[in-house]
Amino acid sequence: MASNQRKVAIIGTGLVGSSIAYCLVNQGVCDEIALIDINRERAVGEAMDLTHCADFTPWRTYVQAGGYELCADADVVVITAGGPPKAGQTRLDTLGASAKIIESIIPEVMKSGFDGLFVIASNPVDIITHYTWTLCGLPRSRVIGTGTTIDSSRLKTLLSETIQTDPRSIHVYTLGEHGDSQFAAWSHATIGGKPLQHVIADNPTRFSNLDLDELVEKTKKAGWEIYNRKGTTYYGIANAAVYIIRSIFNDDQKIIPVSSVLDGEYGYTGVTAGVPAIIGRAGIREVVQLHLSTEEQQKFDHSVSLLKQYMSSIGLES
Amino acid sequence: MASNQRKVAIIGTGLVGSSIAYCLVNQGVCDEIALIDINRERAVGEAMDLTHCADFTPWRTYVQAGGYELCADADVVVITAGGPPKAGQTRLDTLGASAKIIESIIPEVMKSGFDGLFVIASNPVDIITHYTWTLCGLPRSRVIGTGTTIDSSRLKTLLSETIQTDPRSIHVYTLGEHGDSQFAAWSHATIGGKPLQHVIADNPTRFSNLDLDELVEKTKKAGWEIYNRKGTTYYGIANAAVYIIRSIFNDDQKIIPVSSVLDGEYGYTGVTAGVPAIIGRAGIREVVQLHLSTEEQQKFDHSVSLLKQYMSSIGLES
Amino acid sequence: MASNQRKVAIIGTGLVGSSIAYCLVNQGVCDEIALIDINRERAVGEAMDLTHCADFTPWRTYVQAGGYELCADADVVVITAGGPPKAGQTRLDTLGASAKIIESIIPEVMKSGFDGLFVIASNPVDIITHYTWTLCGLPRSRVIGTGTTIDSSRLKTLLSETIQTDPRSIHVYTLGEHGDSQFAAWSHATIGGKPLQHVIADNPTRFSNLDLDELVEKTKKAGWEIYNRKGTTYYGIANAAVYIIRSIFNDDQKIIPVSSVLDGEYGYTGVTAGVPAIIGRAGIREVVQLHLSTEEQQKFDHSVSLLKQYMSSIGLES
Amino acid sequence: MASNQRKVAIIGTGLVGSSIAYCLVNQGVCDEIALIDINRERAVGEAMDLTHCADFTPWRTYVQAGGYELCADADVVVITAGGPPKAGQTRLDTLGASAKIIESIIPEVMKSGFDGLFVIASNPVDIITHYTWTLCGLPRSRVIGTGTTIDSSRLKTLLSETIQTDPRSIHVYTLGEHGDSQFAAWSHATIGGKPLQHVIADNPTRFSNLDLDELVEKTKKAGWEIYNRKGTTYYGIANAAVYIIRSIFNDDQKIIPVSSVLDGEYGYTGVTAGVPAIIGRAGIREVVQLHLSTEEQQKFDHSVSLLKQYMSSIGLES
Repeated sequence: MASNQRKVAIIGTGLVGSSIAYCLVNQGVCDEIALIDINRERAVGEAMDLTHCADFTPWRTYVQAGGYELCADADVVVITAGGPPKAGQTRLDTLGASAKIIESIIPEVMKSGFDGLFVIASNPVDIITHYTWTLCGLPRSRVIGTGTTIDSSRLKTLLSETIQTDPRSIHVYTLGEHGDSQFAAWSHATIGGKPLQHVIADNPTRFSNLDLDELVEKTKKAGWEIYNRKGTTYYGIANAAVYIIRSIFNDDQKIIPVSSVLDGEYGYTGVTAGVPAIIGRAGIREVVQLHLSTEEQQKFDHSVSLLKQYMSSIGLES
Repeated sequence: MASNQRKVAIIGTGLVGSSIAYCLVNQGVCDEIALIDINRERAVGEAMDLTHCADFTPWRTYVQAGGYELCADADVVVITAGGPPKAGQTRLDTLGASAKIIESIIPEVMKSGFDGLFVIASNPVDIITHYTWTLCGLPRSRVIGTGTTIDSSRLKTLLSETIQTDPRSIHVYTLGEHGDSQFAAWSHATIGGKPLQHVIADNPTRFSNLDLDELVEKTKKAGWEIYNRKGTTYYGIANAAVYIIRSIFNDDQKIIPVSSVLDGEYGYTGVTAGVPAIIGRAGIREVVQLHLSTEEQQKFDHSVSLLKQYMSSIGLES
Repeated sequence: MASNQRKVAIIGTGLVGSSIAYCLVNQGVCDEIALIDINRERAVGEAMDLTHCADFTPWRTYVQAGGYELCADADVVVITAGGPPKAGQTRLDTLGASAKIIESIIPEVMKSGFDGLFVIASNPVDIITHYTWTLCGLPRSRVIGTGTTIDSSRLKTLLSETIQTDPRSIHVYTLGEHGDSQFAAWSHATIGGKPLQHVIADNPTRFSNLDLDELVEKTKKAGWEIYNRKGTTYYGIANAAVYIIRSIFNDDQKIIPVSSVLDGEYGYTGVTAGVPAIIGRAGIREVVQLHLSTEEQQKFDHSVSLLKQYMSSIGLES
Repeated sequence: MASNQRKVAIIGTGLVGSSIAYCLVNQGVCDEIALIDINRERAVGEAMDLTHCADFTPWRTYVQAGGYELCADADVVVITAGGPPKAGQTRLDTLGASAKIIESIIPEVMKSGFDGLFVIASNPVDIITHYTWTLCGLPRSRVIGTGTTIDSSRLKTLLSETIQTDPRSIHVYTLGEHGDSQFAAWSHATIGGKPLQHVIADNPTRFSNLDLDELVEKTKKAGWEIYNRKGTTYYGIANAAVYIIRSIFNDDQKIIPVSSVLDGEYGYTGVTAGVPAIIGRAGIREVVQLHLSTEEQQKFDHSVSLLKQYMSSIGLES
């Protein structure tokens, strides 16, 4: 009979995981949410709090808490377990602890009979995405990290404040590591389709103080700026994850800068980094290969070399 | 020229206040949000985190942090300041501290030139709503507490699990204090328009274990059940507040059980309690007076007498 | 892997059918729409026009036109074929022509391998729903007519104008035939949960001119009032159909007054009429039996006797 | 007190005008809609049909029909009057009749005290936009034609079918006349930020049959393809208009290819053509000047020279 309901399972119900659930509920993205946490009572509490929203939303979303068996019929399993980095740590510093957590989670998910798509939001996201892929045995198309989706959004937001234009009319990616070695692909930045360099050239006075390098630095630091003020960051990243999930459920074929296992793209195989990819019901259909400038490719190379170091630090071959 | 944008100012950006903002962003309820907190940096951090969502939502919401001057052109000011009760405290125990906070806030809001509607989510919500009304000098129609909106939703959710029906097809109110003395107006409970007593009578076996008193007890304790598991509760109450705000902006004239200053309704004047009210652009157009059963009216009387005691404990006449 | 997309096939792409598709696109209710019409070019034109909306909506909906084979993997097949009644005709006058059309459609749909739910909007909707059920061989739970959903909405709208309350806070059904013999179940009418009779009794002056019989007459004539002004009616009925479809996809378990084949409910078996029913992913889970007043049950009996006459006029046993 | 509601008045309630209203209702874009038509009964019928949707939508939209006085407090007045072209006519052939209609409408709108923004969907849209501007006396920023918004969407849709990518990830404009002389600014076409020429170069086999000129021809003819199949076209254009209206109400500052009166941009003053423009609460904040290729600028020049001829044919100076 009629097909199953759209179901998302979220592993890890800290502030990122529960914000993803709350965003799913408020945007009406799926029909069922399963919350799974090592602290099962915490997950139960979140499910109760979210269930009380049902009377106030235009669509009904069932939320329940439980064990890994709830992943069996999920379309998407979101991994947020691992916790935010501590002050002074880089995203990569949290790697060891996160890797251990992932090792305990992924086999349990697969044991449930899960046969859908992973969306990874745990940091360091590129490496956790890669590790999930090696642990789950699914094709690379079905393991998607949030990658530089949130960083690209932050950079667009900064540009939108300078240029006073809707961030959704701005096109720019940061690529590579979701971390300090990321870089902006300025060669492909456009405002309403107009190359950014033309925008600047046409308005020399107005943009005389525009410092693109500074914007990238601010982008990299945005998470810390929030961290220093509210202890952690979760709304932006939650909406980024939900944006990816919507593209999956609607089979959008939208192009989003996510963490993807590379298979020759940008010169690399067996490593995972933030690259633009076409996202639909089957996951990553294709990685989009931009013609990066020489300088941009060097930055990409640098970012990948760092990622490889970190991979090897936890015994992952690349 | 074209009318102003729809603007909500939120005073207090703890988890309730920021969840309200996040829900507004994800449901596209208004165009501008102002975040105001005694910890201004916290508000700045929330504004940043929420601003990064803009690239991922179908509508654009501007979020900024600042001082009370941002209330000047707000349509709605939401008060969440006060913090959640501590374990073992009743909602009323938190009264003294909350009252002091409100005394410092409301005059500042009014000094800004604010001329809109208050939506109060601070606990104990009935008394804080009343106190806000006495402090702001606006007509009672323009001061709305979230009251038993969330409790009614929780009771509907519990019923919906028992009767397996959409909570939005269930009609029941809890009334009186948003606290332990609230009661369910079972005389007015319907499932798809069918009186609950008929539903039960028609299915004696199926509902042989249905204990209505127990459902009300569970409703009262739902907040604590969540509190014990995740430290506080914010999603349900945030969606309840946003539901009220939507009814204001869309001029719905929807009937919602809110905290309203009474002016003769249910036999009381000069006290504030949870009652059904018609909500639209001008706030509370009318309190709906149900024909309560004798027992229900007694419970209402009891709830009001408690509320009056608490009012007098902070020097409010009733 | 991940479950299939939510797909609606619409048979008949006149103004009702295409308005349903347009509403689905604008509310983001499903992922795929198939348009099927005896005039295939018309369906192709509608699909093109609707496809051009994709760039402007928050969600992507694929729209295609084609033959009955497109029903194979549909979750819901909507029948709108049959065309609006001509001036002076009752909805039942159009029966003969509509029955012939249905005879040609349903076997083709079933031959495709379709195994979902029918939503019937063709008039006379009660009888066409019944006939579809006899032709398709599916359980009665999977054949849902729009019934008095639209009439109930019209009656609520009229009440909302009189009582100045959101129609969504008003509860009242018209039941029986979607036609002149329908009646309002005033015994179950509530405004924000308050019985309508109490509302009127409490405001004798304000509602001294409120004539409930007149409202029902206006409700019955609303379609003709629109017909006389714009040639036919399609927006209201399209939104009613989409409301049902949303409740299916979200598994709402919402209670809606639809046309359902009766199996003992309200004293009848083997006849189809407008009754409240619980709607979810599996279709009609249960018909809700109201305790109608004696007068209301008599009106229901009268309506059913008319429906039976019409059924027998096209050779349907009841 | 609280600001006014968001109100759209629609002049002309044929299929385009009423589809705009229906889309506004289903997307919840505004709070009030006023329908105005020379056939006032038609407008009344549409208002009734749309009002019956209120029970089924998540937001409440008030719809009423009446005279020009309803424009007084509108934020946006949409002009759709004029009717679709007849078979064999170009959009410009309908000019004379449309100009007369506009002459009768705009002074009435202004007499009401209207002080908002015009959104023009009547064809030939560039010239009717220009004429509206001359008649209303408002600054050019407040008169916006739907221009090539719909054509750009159609071209993206065609590309999205070829390249299998979300049209919302594709960036390309058609510019100039909303008519046969329009052209695609291929120099600024990108897929997920990647220049179209790179996409094609990287996939020579896959896109060996991609004929860009043919896509532009199909784009120009798309309206007629629909016209020939369903008699006229209205859904795509309605969503295009609503997209512009949403950008106004949300103050998006989104860049959209609309008809704008030019004031030096692209080398022209005193003529109106389709160009990218930044749209927000105040209307057109700025026309975006792309660095067109020489060939593209020649096509723009050609398009403008045609538009000027048509302008002079109805006595408009340029």
